[in-house]
Parts: sequence; structure tokens; C-alpha cells
Amino acid sequence: MTPPKPITVIGLGNLGSALAETFLRHGHPTTVWNRSSAKAEPLVAKGAVRTDTAAEAVTASELVLVTLLDPPAAREVLAGAAEAVRGHALVNLTSGGPEDARELATWAAEHRAEYLHGAVYAIPQTIGTAESSINYSGSADVHEQWKAELAILGKGTYLGVDAGRASGYDVAVLAGMYGMLGGFLHATAMATAAGVSASELTPMLVSWLTDSFPALPTFATEIDEGDYATDESSLAMNQAGLATIIRASQSQGIPASTLVPLKEMIDQQIDAGHGADSLARAVESLRNSA
Amino acid sequence: MTPPKPITVIGLGNLGSALAETFLRHGHPTTVWNRSSAKAEPLVAKGAVRTDTAAEAVTASELVLVTLLDPPAAREVLAGAAEAVRGHALVNLTSGGPEDARELATWAAEHRAEYLHGAVYAIPQTIGTAESSINYSGSADVHEQWKAELAILGKGTYLGVDAGRASGYDVAVLAGMYGMLGGFLHATAMATAAGVSASELTPMLVSWLTDSFPALPTFATEIDEGDYATDESSLAMNQAGLATIIRASQSQGIPASTLVPLKEMIDQQIDAGHGADSLARAVESLRNSA
Repeated sequence: MTPPKPITVIGLGNLGSALAETFLRHGHPTTVWNRSSAKAEPLVAKGAVRTDTAAEAVTASELVLVTLLDPPAAREVLAGAAEAVRGHALVNLTSGGPEDARELATWAAEHRAEYLHGAVYAIPQTIGTAESSINYSGSADVHEQWKAELAILGKGTYLGVDAGRASGYDVAVLAGMYGMLGGFLHATAMATAAGVSASELTPMLVSWLTDSFPALPTFATEIDEGDYATDESSLAMNQAGLATIIRASQSQGIPASTLVPLKEMIDQQIDAGHGADSLARAVESLRNSA
Repeated sequence: MTPPKPITVIGLGNLGSALAETFLRHGHPTTVWNRSSAKAEPLVAKGAVRTDTAAEAVTASELVLVTLLDPPAAREVLAGAAEAVRGHALVNLTSGGPEDARELATWAAEHRAEYLHGAVYAIPQTIGTAESSINYSGSADVHEQWKAELAILGKGTYLGVDAGRASGYDVAVLAGMYGMLGGFLHATAMATAAGVSASELTPMLVSWLTDSFPALPTFATEIDEGDYATDESSLAMNQAGLATIIRASQSQGIPASTLVPLKEMIDQQIDAGHGADSLARAVESLRNSA
């Protein structure tokens, strides 16, 4: 058995600190760097080595994990270590969009580093447990060569060589989740205004959403094929239903701000003559406003 | 065994026609009325009696089901039958808000009719099957006395004497569903712009939403108790996460119109000094703008 390999973690927010702690617990020589060095102290107390510059931290290990505040911070810190990255494996877990990941992948290629992007589905407390999962895309070599070390962090899924793919999934899934959460909050505002508590409403809402899930793969196929002919949930039916709900919300004194944009997406498609088509066609209103 | 009792159905859209057909199939003498009489013809062919006025239709049966386009249509048609409703049981399944139901309940009381409101969770094709369920509120007597007849239509749940309660649930649940659907459509627009098909995305999104459901009862309790202290999903964390997603969406040329209102609700609470509080506090932004 080979001894645990050295690993570097750049950026020691909640996620970065959790990563470094997890590697230390598994016996990896761990080098850390953070702009404000105070964040490194608890890790140094557990055996980590702190460097003064990001470049030194990169130099210390073949595998370098990056978890910074946002994509501009990641670009800036890595630019400062540009001379050091050659031949290293960069695994960037900084949250951002697919374009951000692709931009850094291109930068890494220009500097002869290998680049793998990861989108983390975990809170820092669950890093290193079975509750944590991470989607990766970018360098297949990095994913393959460092599989054992990455597996320490949580369940990993490799989505392909396009470095933007993991983030593409990530931001899309989170957009969907926030849509659901916005709907939930709006629903509780309406229910409580009508004398139904949020706790009474929630099981019924969850059950209704769960019952609605089987419609989504059908909508997804329609979107992928661009064929919106349907006998089921037409734009016109949904326009009427949504109008009733928006009216009910407003009559309760609750602005329907989370629903009006969907209504406008639907209206736009109906105005273009597609009222009999599937609700899924409303996605075209988002695409066409580009 | 008593013979099937006469029943009247007023309004023969898809839902009303499905109701009348279901009662006919179960042997009930069924009287129907619709503003445009052509809709009555297929039902007359199956044994229904068509009347020339809504008042005559009301007179024909003790139990009168009403399914019109919207609450104004229901008010108008019933006003035209005001002399006939005395002593009858009105079950109104017309979609609307809680205030609409309460207004008609008051009108019914003034005209010595009994009023039960129903919110239908079914598509017309599933009326009369186990897939159909209807929430009722209003007159407990009507619900009790006509339980057997109403059970023919689907699973019934009685939510209390406040006639607005069934609609209050209904519009809130539907608002939540449309929030989820808006999020789904936005998610598919973002995914497909990043090279991930809607069909690839959907299972991951459904799994993520399902995994998010356990957070909702906690949020609901916070909302009901007005106590938003939390160590978990703070407004500040969600503000940052949502900003990343909105930026990613916009950089793909996709307007984040379905997410910006939630961001504004969060911003408003953080600006008021509540950044460390639970995401659930964002509901207060909807309540306070009343």
C-alpha cells in the first residue's frame, strides 16, 4: 500500500476547511492556503502546512483543490499561481456557471495544468460522509488518477470531458430548486392568509408536487424534441388556471410576484398562436428573449 | 335500498360534463343546464334532462352541482336562479379563491340555500375514479347528507365549515405547483443552453427536489411560529447562492425572471437586518407588501 499522497486545498471557507480536515483525518499530508491566514490556524493545529502564497501551496502537491468564494476569486488566485500550476491536477469546486468552468479549463490548458471541475451537493458538515455527492466534469485523467482521494469526500459522478457540464447541471438543478422554494413560500403566504397554517398545507403540497413529477419527463421530451403537440396540459388551460391563482393571491393582498413571470412566458407563446400546445412550450419564451 | 336521487349539474364544460356523465352512469336522474345548449346534447342522448333556465335546473333536484368558468360566472348564473335555490344544497366546484367561495356562501345563506364548496384535484377524464379527489368546506350537513353521491365523483375530504377553506388550500397548493413548474422550465432552459438535455436533467432535478422536501416542514413551523432563528439555511447563504445562479442564467442569455422575485424577497429581509435568519423568513416580504 502506498502512503497517502500530499494534497493542497486553496481557499478555506466552510467547504475548503471541511475538505482539508477530511484529508487530514485520512492521513494525507495537507497543505493549505487562504487569503486571510487566520482561517488556516485550526487546520495547522491538526497537522496541515500553511504556505504564504497560493503558488507555494500549488507547488506542494500534485493534486490541488480550489474552493473560493466565486469564479472571479478563483481566476484571480490561480492567476497569481500561474507559474506553479504546470503539470498539476487542479480540481475546482468553486460554485459558478458552466462558462466560468470552461474559462478556467481553457486557462489551465494554456498553463499545462489538468483541470477537473466539481459541483458539490453537500453542506460542509457532511463532506466526507455518504450524504455528500459531487458531480465532476473536465479531465478524465484527473478523475481517474485521483479517484481514491476524491472518493474520500463523497460519492463522485463523472459527467464528461466538457468542464462546464457539472456546473451546467448544478446551476440548472439549483434554479429548479429555488423555483420550488419560491412556490412553497408563496403557497404558505396564501394559505396562512386564508386561515390554513403552513404546517397543515405542507404535506398536501408535497404530495401534490410528488404527484406532478411524472409529468416532468414528458415535458422534458417535448422540450428536447421541440414538439409541443399535446392533448393534456395545454398553455391555454394553464393560462386560465394561473390567472385564477394570481387573482386569488392579489385579492388576499399577496403579490403574485413569483408566478407572474411564468404567466408572461405562457402569454407570450399563446399570443404567438400556440395556445393548444403543451405548457412545456413556455420554455421557448426564456430561450427567445436571449 | 332507496333509488338513486335526482341531481342537477349546472355548467357543462369538461368538468361539468364529466360529472353529469358519471351520475348518469350510476343511475341518477340527472338534470343539466348550460348557457350554450349544444353542450347538453351528448348528455341528453345518454338520458339527461336539459332545462331552458338555470332556475328550472335548480328546481329539479335537491342537490345542485355548479361548475362554471370562474367565480363571476357562478355568481351571475346563481343570481338568475335566486328564487329557486331556497332549501337546496348547492355544491360549487367552480375554481376560485377563498373570498369567492365565502361570498357565494353568504349569498346562499341569504337565500336560504345550503352551500358546500369543493376544490377538485382531477382532470375531467379521471372524475368518478380513484384518481380523483375533492376537498370540501362549508356546510357540514350537505357534506354528510350527500356523502354517497359525492363519493361517486372521487375521494372526498371535508376541511371544515369555513366555505373558503377548500379554495384556500387549493389556490395555495396550485401556487406552489406553478412555482415548481416555473423552476423546472427555467432549469431546462439553463441545462439545454449548457449542453445537458432536459431529459438528462429531469431525473437529477426530481431527485434533488425530493431530497429538499424534508426541509419544508421545518420552514413551515418557522413560518407558523414566526421564529426564524436557524443554524441551517440562512437568508445570507441563499442570497449568495441565488445570485450565482441568476448570474449564470443571465450569462447564458436566459433571463432569470422566475428567480429574481425570490431574490428580492430575500434581499428585503436581509436589508432589514435578518441575514442570519432562516430562508423561510422571505415569506414575510410577501406578507408585508400587502
